[in-house]
Amino acid sequence: MFRQVISVRWAEGVSPDAKQGYRDALAGLREIPQLLALTFGDDAGHFEGNFDFVAVMDFADFDSARVYVADPRHQAYIQEHASKVIGERVVVQHDWTAAVD
Amino acid sequence: MFRQVISVRWAEGVSPDAKQGYRDALAGLREIPQLLALTFGDDAGHFEGNFDFVAVMDFADFDSARVYVADPRHQAYIQEHASKVIGERVVVQHDWTAAVD
Repeated sequence: MFRQVISVRWAEGVSPDAKQGYRDALAGLREIPQLLALTFGDDAGHFEGNFDFVAVMDFADFDSARVYVADPRHQAYIQEHASKVIGERVVVQHDWTAAVD
Repeated sequence: MFRQVISVRWAEGVSPDAKQGYRDALAGLREIPQLLALTFGDDAGHFEGNFDFVAVMDFADFDSARVYVADPRHQAYIQEHASKVIGERVVVQHDWTAAVD
């Protein structure tokens, strides 16, 4: 499995509606078959300094992730939502095996 | 479930051995019963600007995560490993349900 983790700080002045539109659009990307698993959520607010939002995505491998990135649905998500609400993002990508231990 | 995602940049000058000691110590935290699931890995190096390492941890709830943080094994991990190799870290914590969709 190839995992991509994206931590996000919202851009300044983003409305609650725009954030919800982003979350809904992200959830809609589950239609893309290469995206095998997706979890995401807003930071729970327990600690100062945390980022605002995180998404964890799993693909079969890096090539599958590249197909997902090029998919028109993903491109539309970037242009219509992600590019408008994300102020800062931190990405890590790594291979892993689902059967840990 | 309560998820904690920690993205890391290594501190400057950290040796490969110190990084491996950190990874091994992190894996050892699976002994702590409140840590229900742990995946981690080094960034695959496909893109400039990515952070170096990420860990995804799941607990039953926030209170369970607090028990884990206070566990002497976690405290030793922080003092002997994490505090020595982590230069920068980004954290997001959120509730989620394992049954997505």
